[in-house]
Formats: sequence, structure tokens, C-alpha cells
Amino acid sequence: MTDSLAPLRSAEIIAVGSELLGSTRIDTNSLFLADGLAGLGIALRAKAVVGDRRGDLATMFGLALERVDLVILTGGLGPTDDDLTRDVVSEVLRLPLAEDPAIVADIEARFAKRGMRMPAINRRQAMVPRGATVLDNPNGSAPGLLVHVGDRLVLLLPGPPREMKPMFERVAASVLSPRAGRERFYRATVLVAGRSESHVEEAIQPIYAPLATAVPPIETTILAAPGQIEVHLTALSDDAELAQRALASARERIVAAIGDDAFSLDGRSMEDIVGGLLRDAGSTIAVAESCSGGLLLSRLTDIPGSSAYVRGGVVAYSNDVKTAFADVPADLIAEHGAVSEPVATAMAEGIRARMAATFGVGVTGIAGPGGGTPAKPVGTIAIAVAGPSGTSVRTVRFNGSRAQIKHYASQSALDMVRRTVARDAAVRRG
Amino acid sequence: MTDSLAPLRSAEIIAVGSELLGSTRIDTNSLFLADGLAGLGIALRAKAVVGDRRGDLATMFGLALERVDLVILTGGLGPTDDDLTRDVVSEVLRLPLAEDPAIVADIEARFAKRGMRMPAINRRQAMVPRGATVLDNPNGSAPGLLVHVGDRLVLLLPGPPREMKPMFERVAASVLSPRAGRERFYRATVLVAGRSESHVEEAIQPIYAPLATAVPPIETTILAAPGQIEVHLTALSDDAELAQRALASARERIVAAIGDDAFSLDGRSMEDIVGGLLRDAGSTIAVAESCSGGLLLSRLTDIPGSSAYVRGGVVAYSNDVKTAFADVPADLIAEHGAVSEPVATAMAEGIRARMAATFGVGVTGIAGPGGGTPAKPVGTIAIAVAGPSGTSVRTVRFNGSRAQIKHYASQSALDMVRRTVARDAAVRRG
Repeated sequence: MTDSLAPLRSAEIIAVGSELLGSTRIDTNSLFLADGLAGLGIALRAKAVVGDRRGDLATMFGLALERVDLVILTGGLGPTDDDLTRDVVSEVLRLPLAEDPAIVADIEARFAKRGMRMPAINRRQAMVPRGATVLDNPNGSAPGLLVHVGDRLVLLLPGPPREMKPMFERVAASVLSPRAGRERFYRATVLVAGRSESHVEEAIQPIYAPLATAVPPIETTILAAPGQIEVHLTALSDDAELAQRALASARERIVAAIGDDAFSLDGRSMEDIVGGLLRDAGSTIAVAESCSGGLLLSRLTDIPGSSAYVRGGVVAYSNDVKTAFADVPADLIAEHGAVSEPVATAMAEGIRARMAATFGVGVTGIAGPGGGTPAKPVGTIAIAVAGPSGTSVRTVRFNGSRAQIKHYASQSALDMVRRTVARDAAVRRG
Repeated sequence: MTDSLAPLRSAEIIAVGSELLGSTRIDTNSLFLADGLAGLGIALRAKAVVGDRRGDLATMFGLALERVDLVILTGGLGPTDDDLTRDVVSEVLRLPLAEDPAIVADIEARFAKRGMRMPAINRRQAMVPRGATVLDNPNGSAPGLLVHVGDRLVLLLPGPPREMKPMFERVAASVLSPRAGRERFYRATVLVAGRSESHVEEAIQPIYAPLATAVPPIETTILAAPGQIEVHLTALSDDAELAQRALASARERIVAAIGDDAFSLDGRSMEDIVGGLLRDAGSTIAVAESCSGGLLLSRLTDIPGSSAYVRGGVVAYSNDVKTAFADVPADLIAEHGAVSEPVATAMAEGIRARMAATFGVGVTGIAGPGGGTPAKPVGTIAIAVAGPSGTSVRTVRFNGSRAQIKHYASQSALDMVRRTVARDAAVRRG
């Protein structure tokens, strides 16, 4: 049956929810969906956000349905009165709703698992337009829906990203991919630490002009993200192998131009890369952090399986805690100040010894907004990494909000750990 | 003349640019505009992003024009072929374009200032639909345009935020504000912890129906955010004092229905509220966390000034670290397992004593994805809070990814601290 249907070439995304029309919330689901659609070679023609108003949603949905092959609606599938997506889609498509007993049973089971009874209003989530396919939602109570309208498809997904994303991925693989055309977008990424956006641009400019006219042409985009620069490479092609080969060779040339500062060639985060290096080396890590306030440890432990190499750490916000928990001599703090390279070094070496870890990290600085001095302004951070081949230490300075400075401090510290662990492993390999 | 026109009550924003349909860029202009419109009491009914395609933009613009009083288009005013906004607006409104010599002179002067001659393509930016008002752009070469269509307004703004924002502010003050009704939006928020969205809905349903028909009517929106439920109250009124009073009374009734679970009445985050309580009580806090991996400490230290009450803490990922740094007896871990209420209690009491803090928190659990057992599945978390009046402990269970479980664990722990500190303060006050 799939074969007889026209390919899906174009899509529109409609995010539903009055909260997305305010000044504080943003529809980030559409970024994920844009990426997924690009991977299928389906052109995203427009995206829209409408509030919880029946008429507005009906108009926007009706218009999308006239123009594109695939309409994706996110949100408005909850149990409350202002969750209108199901109702409006059924009205516009003239497909009456009926309660699906299997969904009711599922939702009741979800509540029962948490020792709760299902509130009566959740029954709304079991209403299904005639002929629609129900999409299981293992991460929430709102099932998704898939409706065929002739050659076109309408996909209703829940709003919360953790429910929406796996559901879209399943539908993409099982329904959308077989109906997409042969041209697909292929991508590669190089993440860079320790350089500014313009320095990355300078380094790779001689490479990316020829890439743009190669076969297939590769488009290069440079983006500045917090604490890292991202080089995105994109190729549109109907030949997967050719595209992948071209991207791999382009990536190689970029890495050759950038060197050690290129830390991730597959999109993995800094903490993931560092974790992989530690695991491969059979090493462990311990942290004593002050200004980053637990964020460095939290990022390290964001990685599944990190308990194999994270021994633990100390957040030493007060000087006496630095002394009692990371063996930093009190007179060292008195002499150099808490934010200093000697103290960062003592923190790294102290926590390494106390927690019997292969590597110890010390981070001390001023996250602001208060606490700066002319000699040590807000954003001054001393970072030390202690390991089997000694301790290295450096002082860096960042601008930004308290949250940004915490993030930059943790990113710099992770990057120092990455370079240290990689160097030690290279030395051991001889 | 202004007086004879109908007030502007509704708006739609259309952002133009294919780059905004990718997976890496987001339209942030609309957040700024949403805020500005709310301040004028103009309801934002929808927002859309369309690529640089004539037909798509024409359709979306035509549709907006039928539905709202004010259509704001951002972007697509540059000098290149894919900058279509001027052309499409003139076509849809049937207002022919003519070159404005004053704009040409302006752009030529801008280029001359940088020692350059104006490229010929920049003449496109001087094309003005008949009858439109030209809006100066001191920060770029693209002027904005304002078109009256009967009672309705169409506003074309440049895409770069630093050009768009000042231009909108000038138009808002000079043109929109006099045409806006006297009615403005007023807002209040109640944040709730420890209840599901449906349970919040059930509790306040008897309240929000009457609110919707009160004077002024108050609209209630319930949103599920990670670890908390948000109740947003909005009133549209021409009487600021009346609106504020009505919102305050509505908020009071909601708090009365929800009780202690309502933790924030002004939008402040849980960590901010907890920090305020600790500061007001002159108390300090120390943390021993395992599965939350530093996130609890990181959230506590996200708050400016937190060094006044955060003593520090330990991330005890391994059992021997729990023993060495938080004085958890090894045989207690052997007997009950690391994820247990006795161990959480010992962590809280141990770190409280070791760091000489008023309150100690212990968090131990299984963040997953590995490490679960039938008796203690992934997501099982034991949390204890020790303070001057003793220690309380509970076990909670969450579903979700590793990152989500870490967040929920930190949120639950903060919420337990909040309740403990508030209770202690109440007892002390007698």
C-alpha cells in the first residue's frame, strides 16, 4: 500500500499552546523535528505556534493541510479543557472521536503504578478520531495519533520533548522513511574548544569554499555555542555512500586544520568524550570545585555508566571545607587567596589523594555577580588537573552571567582533563 | 485621525527566513515582540516562521491579515533575491512599489561612511509600497515599513534583533500605544511541587470557573514543567489596580486550595525560594548526594549570594566516599544497601555534622539507565533532611531519562528542605 502513495516531500509543524505565545517559553520541539525531517529529505515549509483557541488552530491546520504532505502538530493532547488538538483535528477532518478502551486501561495502569487513581478528566486522552492509528507513549499519559488523509499524513505528538522525541523517531522509521524521496540530508559535526568563532572561521576558510562546489556539495555552518564552537557539514544526495565518504573526508581536513582543539567528531558532548577517555584508560576521577558549585560533577555524572570512573567530589564553597575535605593548607589560602593557582593545585592534588583517584581536578574562582576585585574580577577562574604525570594549572577569565561563568568554568576544566588524559594515554602507549 | 480607528486588539507575528526553519536557529525576536504586545494589551494570537518562498509567505500573510488587527513581519528586508517580504506584502495588499530617493540617499551615505560605494542590489531596500510609512533604521541598511490597511496595521521590521528592537519600541510608543485599547494584560503565577498536573487541576477546578466570569475575568492555565506544575493567571483590564487586586485574591484562593505544595507566588525557582528561606533564617546547608551527582549543589549555588548559606557538599558516587566523607558506617551500607532510607539518613546527618551546617541533605538512588533491581528499580531515590529538630526521610520513585531522574531527585530534595526550613522557622516564631 505504501508504494501506491505519493512521496512525502513537504511538511509543516504546528505547536499548540498559549504558553508558547508568551515571552518566556519557546517551541524547541520544532528544532528536533526539523532535524528529523531533514534526515528524511522532507522540506520543512513553515512552522507555526497557535494558542489554545479552537478557531485559530482550525484555521492554521486547515491551511497547512492544503499546502504540504505532512502536518505535524505538537502539544494540546493533555487531559484538560484547554487541550484542543484532538478535537480540532477531528472536526477539520470530519472524523468523529470515539473512546479507545485500551488507552483508558493504559492510563489507569500508569497512575496505578505510582499508587494513584486516574482522575476522570484523563479519559479525554483516550478519544481517537475514526481511522486514526494510536501511537503508544511509554513516557506519558497522552498517546500520539497518526491520521491518513488521502496521500497526506497528519501526525499528533505530545508536547513534552521526552514524550515527543521517541514517538517521532518510531514514526519516522516505520512510516515516514518508507514514504520519503531518495534524496536525503547527510551531516557531520566537529566540536571545537579553546578557540573563538572567528579563529575557527579563519582556520577552515581555505577548506570550505572548495567543499561548496564538490560533488555532492557540502555546506559548512559555524555556530558559537556556550563554551564551544560547532562546525556543521551538510550534504544533500541520493547516494548515501558517496555523501558519507565526502563528509568524512571534509571532516578529516577540518580536524587537520584545527588540531587538538577539535574534541568531538560525532556530536558527543565534552563530558561524554572525557568519560570515554577515562573509561578506555581504566582511570578514575575526583573533583574539588568551588565557584562551579557542583556543575562539573553534575556534568560528569550526566553520562550513563559514569559511576565506573567518577569516584566523587567535594563542593568546597567555604575555605574551611577546602581544608577539611581536600586537604588545602589554611595558610596557603591565607597567603594566596582562595582564588589562586596554588589553591587550585592543592585542591586537585588533595582530592586526588583523598579519594584515591587517577586524576584530581581543582576549580576555584569568582562566579559573580558579587565578590570581584580589580585584581581578580568576576569571571576569574583557576583550574588545576593532577594526575600520574604531575599537575598542570591555569587561570582563565570569562564574561557573562553567574550561570554562564559556571558553565564556562566546568567546560574549561573538562577540556583540561580531556587533554591531560589523552596525553597520558599517548605516553603510556609509548 | 487615530481616534476614529478601531483599537488594536490582536496580533500575529511572521518571521521570514529559510535559515529559521533549520535545526540550529530559533526565532527569538518573537519573544521580545510578545512581551511588548502583552504590555500594550494586544493579544498575540499566533506566530509563524516561513522560508524564503513567495507563495508560502503570501499565504501565511493573507491568512494573518484576515484574522488579526496587527500583522508584524520580521526579516526578509535585505538586499538579496531571497529577501521577499516587501514584494509579497505589496502584492498581497495590491500596493505597487516605488523607489524612495530619500532611502537611496540614506543607504548610499551609510556605505560612504565606511568608504564604500552602495552595491546596486541595495536599491531594492529603497522600494516602498504606495502609502506606506518608512521607519528609519539607525542600526542597519534595511528601513522598516508601516502600512495602514483600513483599521488594520502591517508592520515590517528587519530581522537582526539589534535593528528590530529599537524600531519596534519607537513604533510601539508612537503608533501602537495610542491605538491599543485601554485594556492591558496583568499576570500572576503559582508554582506547585509534589502534585501531578491533573491533581492540581482537580484541586483548583472549583476556583477557576468562577474566576473566568469575574470582573475582570481571570484566565487560568496549568502547565507541567519538569518537577513542578505552574498555574498562570492572566487578567485583561483597563484598571491596573483592580486587576492587580483581583489577581492577588485569585492567587490567595489557589494557594488556600493547594496549601503547602504551592511553593512560589512570584515565579521564583525552587532553589531561589529555598535560598531565601535559609538566608532569612540565618541558616546554612550542606549536601551529601549520590545519584543526583552534584546537580543539587549546582542548583543551590546557581543563586547569587548563595555562598552566604551553602557550606558545601560531597558527591559520594562510591560507597567508600560515603563512609570517608559523610561518616556513613560501612556496615549500614552492607546491611541496607546504598540506596536506602538508613543510608540517606546517615548521609544527611553525617554531612551536617562534618560541615557544621544547620541543615544536612542526603540523596541516594538509582539514576539509571543501568543499576536497577526488581526491588529497587531505576528512579528509586531515598532523600533525608537533617536539621535542629531531627531528621525526616522518604523514598520516591520517578520515571524518565537519567538527566530527568537527576533533576526530579534534586527538585524533591529541595522541596523537602523548603518544607523543613519553613516548619522550623514557624516553630521558632512560636
